[in-house]
Amino acid sequence: MDGRRGGAALITLTSDFGLVDPFVGVMKGVIARRAPATPVVDVTHGIPPQDVLAGALVLRHAVPWFPHGTVHVAVVDPGVGSARRAVCVETDDGLLVGPDNGLLSLAAPRSRIRRAVVLAEERFFLSPRSRTFHGRDVFAPVAAALATGTDPGELGPPCSELAALAVPEPDVHHDRALARVIYVDRFGNLTTNVDGALLSRVRAIRIGEVRIDGVSPCYAAAAESAPVAVVNSWGYLEVAIRDGSARDRLGAGVGTTLVLELA
Amino acid sequence: MDGRRGGAALITLTSDFGLVDPFVGVMKGVIARRAPATPVVDVTHGIPPQDVLAGALVLRHAVPWFPHGTVHVAVVDPGVGSARRAVCVETDDGLLVGPDNGLLSLAAPRSRIRRAVVLAEERFFLSPRSRTFHGRDVFAPVAAALATGTDPGELGPPCSELAALAVPEPDVHHDRALARVIYVDRFGNLTTNVDGALLSRVRAIRIGEVRIDGVSPCYAAAAESAPVAVVNSWGYLEVAIRDGSARDRLGAGVGTTLVLELA
Amino acid sequence: MDGRRGGAALITLTSDFGLVDPFVGVMKGVIARRAPATPVVDVTHGIPPQDVLAGALVLRHAVPWFPHGTVHVAVVDPGVGSARRAVCVETDDGLLVGPDNGLLSLAAPRSRIRRAVVLAEERFFLSPRSRTFHGRDVFAPVAAALATGTDPGELGPPCSELAALAVPEPDVHHDRALARVIYVDRFGNLTTNVDGALLSRVRAIRIGEVRIDGVSPCYAAAAESAPVAVVNSWGYLEVAIRDGSARDRLGAGVGTTLVLELA
Repeated sequence: MDGRRGGAALITLTSDFGLVDPFVGVMKGVIARRAPATPVVDVTHGIPPQDVLAGALVLRHAVPWFPHGTVHVAVVDPGVGSARRAVCVETDDGLLVGPDNGLLSLAAPRSRIRRAVVLAEERFFLSPRSRTFHGRDVFAPVAAALATGTDPGELGPPCSELAALAVPEPDVHHDRALARVIYVDRFGNLTTNVDGALLSRVRAIRIGEVRIDGVSPCYAAAAESAPVAVVNSWGYLEVAIRDGSARDRLGAGVGTTLVLELA
Repeated sequence: MDGRRGGAALITLTSDFGLVDPFVGVMKGVIARRAPATPVVDVTHGIPPQDVLAGALVLRHAVPWFPHGTVHVAVVDPGVGSARRAVCVETDDGLLVGPDNGLLSLAAPRSRIRRAVVLAEERFFLSPRSRTFHGRDVFAPVAAALATGTDPGELGPPCSELAALAVPEPDVHHDRALARVIYVDRFGNLTTNVDGALLSRVRAIRIGEVRIDGVSPCYAAAAESAPVAVVNSWGYLEVAIRDGSARDRLGAGVGTTLVLELA
Repeated sequence: MDGRRGGAALITLTSDFGLVDPFVGVMKGVIARRAPATPVVDVTHGIPPQDVLAGALVLRHAVPWFPHGTVHVAVVDPGVGSARRAVCVETDDGLLVGPDNGLLSLAAPRSRIRRAVVLAEERFFLSPRSRTFHGRDVFAPVAAALATGTDPGELGPPCSELAALAVPEPDVHHDRALARVIYVDRFGNLTTNVDGALLSRVRAIRIGEVRIDGVSPCYAAAAESAPVAVVNSWGYLEVAIRDGSARDRLGAGVGTTLVLELA
């Protein structure tokens, strides 16, 4: 974490704020005031509104690609202004800052947490602070403090229990499994909850009226406009339409079920 | 303003350019050529096309969060290429650069203007310059000049009269007021024109068929999917639906009226 | 190119990844790891999915505005993971990195190429690399290498033939020409394939039921809500509706034909 001490850390932002409003810009203004030398990178602000699980998935698959010691701020926060806690979690990858509603829990599973603290010390917040925009009033100034060398321990007392989410597991029965879509990207590609050892057992996939034989090495292995299954960049089984949208063509979305035929 | 002299200033960009086209990227290219060490922060490029009042509101509520001395470029400019003037306005907060069509007037009200100049010195512009994209050809290079230490007085002659916009005031009659929606954000939350002393007098709000009792401290104070009124991060009364979109559920938009019952 | 040697180069990103997913953020994470001091500018990530010609047009009209020596990464890559090559092309403007599918060919026409190499040296890639996201696994780390002083020649063997695209030319017959829309921007303005010497011969334009007399100096020269033709910031004839959307009003899109009456 020594990189942060000199104020050279990176801050990333992940949220459901979108880019149509000035929310993200204002958070960067607060950071620029309090940690002027610190670069800020947007992971994405396109998390569907209030979709904490989507935010948690995105964060889990983004954090490992950033430099160690990066300060990752995440805000998908339907409980803003209520009694839900705000926390800072330290892992080997860096520091995660956000609401304690499970958003950080896939990027920082229990086994990887070095320490976690509740954001309680109000001297690190903006004052007065609103009840609707803690991204600006709490999380941005706390991230700036961390990026300029504040030790997480100064932010508040340790906390041992954190809210946790889990990616739903496929149901496996002998040579068959029931899986589901957990994320849909801008291309309409469908990320499923199938990963790890199960991947090598997949012989065929049925989704709606469509049957896909086997897992292809890449999109272009399919005929034009044909459905194709690949292992995607998160390591999950993904259903796509070559040069088209599987979401639109298959009428699928988050929660849509797939039947896998297994070896 | 001394921060700018060393080339360490920040430039912000606010526009209706969106992020689908390369307009914003090209402005940053021009700035990178002329002020290489200067960080650029997007406030937002999601202002509805040609909506000068929305741009003015966003700018007013963004500028105060940035470091003093920041150069704020704003471009919502239906009159580009015509005789409308381009200006630079200096306030205690920093420098504002944009078309003289009212866009800067809420962030830089008359009482807070230190000086204002017309952008007349063509040596600061790109040459040749287009008649359709002054963001690239005029505003970006002028911002780069200011960020690297050019005094506003070098850009052109002073101007005393600037185009001005006003946020429409609510109509208050005894125990009743007629207010309206002035901004809708990505969550479908409805910002109204009710702020300041009037806020504490609000007992109930009627909008369409819906009646909301009182102002809540935060979104989560409402029952799930219920309408709720809060004071938002701009200091205005806002109507929201908990975990949903008030825009969609109430069929509301900019200009929709609300009736307030007052104490 | 000496600017790059010190790690002070700029990297730009152009893609069809959109900003809703974390793809772009993750590319920036990889760059931040391998070229920490290097600023990254988004040209745009709003290229329509898999539309290589749109990406090539955008890149051609963006690259010239950036500093010499900039490293431009472009990814519109339906063939990702297949046998299509990845290349680095050097021109007087800087370095272009992307798939060899024509995407780079308008920004780097044959006559302007100093040298081109195939990205073959796997030591510059992430390992293991996915078959679906070369933006993260190939193009980002190669850009970081270039920005920190790696000579393009180290990346792989020279290649003499590159895939090339062309902007379709208007059909000119005496006093008449058949042109077409080649790009539509966020405002609904229609960029046509009419530029150069032909511009000064345009007397009138027919598109659908609408006839536009002559080319105006700027949008505001038209009556409110009237169609207007201007020369846009790319140097092309553009059809617009003052304060409105020509795409929506004229039902036009990429490929829509226009009839020009010529002098």
